[in-house]
Amino acid sequence: MTKAKGTLIPIGGNEDKGIEDNEMYTLEFIDEGILYHVVKEAGGIDAKIVVIPTASSIPVEVGQSYITAFSKLGCEDITVLDIRSREDSEKQSSIDLIKSCDCVMFSGGDQSKITNKIGGTTIHTILAERYSNEEGFVIAGTSAGAMAMAKRMIAGGSATEAFVKGAVDMYKGLALIPELIIDTHFIQRGRFGRVSEAVAKFPKLIGIGLAEDTGLIIKDGDMQVIGSGMVIIFDPRKLKHNNEKILEEGTPMSLTNLKVHVLANGDRFNIKKKKVQVLPVEAPFI
Amino acid sequence: MTKAKGTLIPIGGNEDKGIEDNEMYTLEFIDEGILYHVVKEAGGIDAKIVVIPTASSIPVEVGQSYITAFSKLGCEDITVLDIRSREDSEKQSSIDLIKSCDCVMFSGGDQSKITNKIGGTTIHTILAERYSNEEGFVIAGTSAGAMAMAKRMIAGGSATEAFVKGAVDMYKGLALIPELIIDTHFIQRGRFGRVSEAVAKFPKLIGIGLAEDTGLIIKDGDMQVIGSGMVIIFDPRKLKHNNEKILEEGTPMSLTNLKVHVLANGDRFNIKKKKVQVLPVEAPFI
Repeated sequence: MTKAKGTLIPIGGNEDKGIEDNEMYTLEFIDEGILYHVVKEAGGIDAKIVVIPTASSIPVEVGQSYITAFSKLGCEDITVLDIRSREDSEKQSSIDLIKSCDCVMFSGGDQSKITNKIGGTTIHTILAERYSNEEGFVIAGTSAGAMAMAKRMIAGGSATEAFVKGAVDMYKGLALIPELIIDTHFIQRGRFGRVSEAVAKFPKLIGIGLAEDTGLIIKDGDMQVIGSGMVIIFDPRKLKHNNEKILEEGTPMSLTNLKVHVLANGDRFNIKKKKVQVLPVEAPFI
Repeated sequence: MTKAKGTLIPIGGNEDKGIEDNEMYTLEFIDEGILYHVVKEAGGIDAKIVVIPTASSIPVEVGQSYITAFSKLGCEDITVLDIRSREDSEKQSSIDLIKSCDCVMFSGGDQSKITNKIGGTTIHTILAERYSNEEGFVIAGTSAGAMAMAKRMIAGGSATEAFVKGAVDMYKGLALIPELIIDTHFIQRGRFGRVSEAVAKFPKLIGIGLAEDTGLIIKDGDMQVIGSGMVIIFDPRKLKHNNEKILEEGTPMSLTNLKVHVLANGDRFNIKKKKVQVLPVEAPFI
């Protein structure tokens, strides 16, 4: 387990790649509960927040929507860092912003855009170092922005009835939390097979399926569920049968003895101990 | 485990309740692979087949489509038993048909119609007795027709992001295979939470999620996957945490240590032993 003092907040999202209305709508949706946690973890409404709408196909509109959403919560120091190329990630102004902020928020869209334009650049290095070393530094991301936090990133692959080898595309993510494979919109888009294939490929990692309007606050390997939906944890470490390695692409796969936890608001999972701690029934919604 | 000499074939379906085009389309879809197995298990093309379209909102059209589909496979003795009331289930002509046929095929639609119009009637009793005592007697069902085979039947409850108590409605099914809770259209309709709640309610039962164009051949507790998609087995017997009993309706639920198997064409699961047997990689598609 990589040591880290900072905070990660991956969120299950509610937007579609390139569908403008939905991308806008998301913000309204997230606004209600989840962004409040992001602000709180970053130190409150005085936090300096940087929004990176790089994944989006409409970065200007999405950036503006996040300004509106964070403003509603009382935040005043919100900057949109509209990175559209690797060169943008090397600009001194970008570096200065990432060095000085309290919180970075990655929007939804296409996660490959995040890794292509930011992965391996100077701001990626700074983000990783600050997350590793600085308590209270927050990296949040919704949908694509959440998926990009993994080292083994789900880059594509749609919901299919069959669980066949090769249905999921895996690329290198930002590797902020290499122990996890993160998927989003888990229920609405029927992504059970996709996460199953991902953990079959990397059976030492933990698969996370985030429902919409649902997120995790991750601090030093401890994660807690926020929002209204469920989080599905796929623990493949005790798989008895996993034929992923030997099958040809397109062949139906089988997996047996996958351990699954279904968690709700307030529940915790410890990545180091691989243990669940469930919120007492009488506890209030967080 | 109830002893049974007959054969059950639940199928994941591909139709919608009351949407005519889809209900028709289903048959074309199932036709290709799954119905072939139904006919084979019933003894081949000379089998006497009875189609029960009771679940459907367009029983006449659906019945006709099944006649067409079974005819294409070479079957000649196909009768539609269009039961629309409990009285229909007590008619001598209905009883004679159910007593004399080799195979009953329940269509998709609304599973409550099956239990309301057939559950507890004379033909239900005959079906259960013949399934229990007669080798080679086949009861197949797609979608609603598959779900009705359970004792604890999922009657309703849509895909939701949250896993909250009370989201799934459970009623009494035909109880042909009381050890299972069966759900269909598992992937396409995001029914992960619904099956999870069902097994949380009945943690001694096994939950089955059937993808579309996918089915099971069940004989004396041994089930084998047929079709192109996946079958998800939910084994809740070793749940460490299950707060279903103590929560109020509408409260988010948590479940930990759910054992899950993802099976593909040819794989087997033994209900008595609760063990999986996976098809060797080199085996052909069945």
